[in-house]
Amino acid sequence: MRVFGIDPGSTVTGFGVVELDRGRYVHIASGAFKTKSDQPMGERLAIIHDGLAEALAAHRPDAVAIEAIFHHKSAESALRLGQARGVALLAAAKAGHEAVAYNNATVKSTVGAHGKADKDAVAKVVTMLLGMRVEGPADVTDALAIAITHLSHLRVAGKIPALRRTA
Amino acid sequence: MRVFGIDPGSTVTGFGVVELDRGRYVHIASGAFKTKSDQPMGERLAIIHDGLAEALAAHRPDAVAIEAIFHHKSAESALRLGQARGVALLAAAKAGHEAVAYNNATVKSTVGAHGKADKDAVAKVVTMLLGMRVEGPADVTDALAIAITHLSHLRVAGKIPALRRTA
Repeated sequence: MRVFGIDPGSTVTGFGVVELDRGRYVHIASGAFKTKSDQPMGERLAIIHDGLAEALAAHRPDAVAIEAIFHHKSAESALRLGQARGVALLAAAKAGHEAVAYNNATVKSTVGAHGKADKDAVAKVVTMLLGMRVEGPADVTDALAIAITHLSHLRVAGKIPALRRTA
Repeated sequence: MRVFGIDPGSTVTGFGVVELDRGRYVHIASGAFKTKSDQPMGERLAIIHDGLAEALAAHRPDAVAIEAIFHHKSAESALRLGQARGVALLAAAKAGHEAVAYNNATVKSTVGAHGKADKDAVAKVVTMLLGMRVEGPADVTDALAIAITHLSHLRVAGKIPALRRTA
């Protein structure tokens, strides 16, 4: 079972691909698409969309998970985040996946970081769960945490056998 | 000069194509893409994106104009609107256009509806300017009003000659 996690943002959009293999989380790939605030918004959204579309095609996940809608400080920042999230959901839909959404609190409690954990704390837990240090900004470890959360929920729901048979 | 106006929304996204011909606004095409709230969001965004992409390819505008970011009642509705706006900006960028944004107040003052004008009042002014009754929901007349606003601003800025020479 391979899950593609997305942490969308208009400046940085992180992605992380994780597999559950014999009860262990295995890092497959991860990265981020960065845009500059002085670039036209359409161009920035195309970078995010095309980057995710390419990564989805390259890693062919079984499912896609994304950060849920959450309450933002300002409506303007929510609208800006919404634009990035919109092209991410579009890329997932075009790859045949309806992204499953998890809110931040669920992600933190699932990976085992406490509720007030900052991004560094989440990164540490992700490093531990994957047994490796992951390069890149917090958006990458956040995306990996979202992927791990979905795998964990599928496992708890009995949708992934505890042990995978080799083909 | 042909402008493609977009009024984005997750439930209804309207578009309207208007040309300025010898100082008169001419209706070229208009329509709306509707989605249902019980459809998965990725699917809804794909309908909006693909609909706009098809209309942009069919009508080959010289410019694209869109409703500006504005302050919303709730961050959640702003995020939802942002998602629709994001795929609209993406469709425009893929068609080679960076959409020009106009806020609601500018659109109203440009088309000649007073500041507190409701959607019906805007529709009436658009009907008058185009010399025809336009079918469809308010999102369509709003999109036409946005296209007219951009044409009017280009004309005032001297970017469109008052009289077009025939080729």
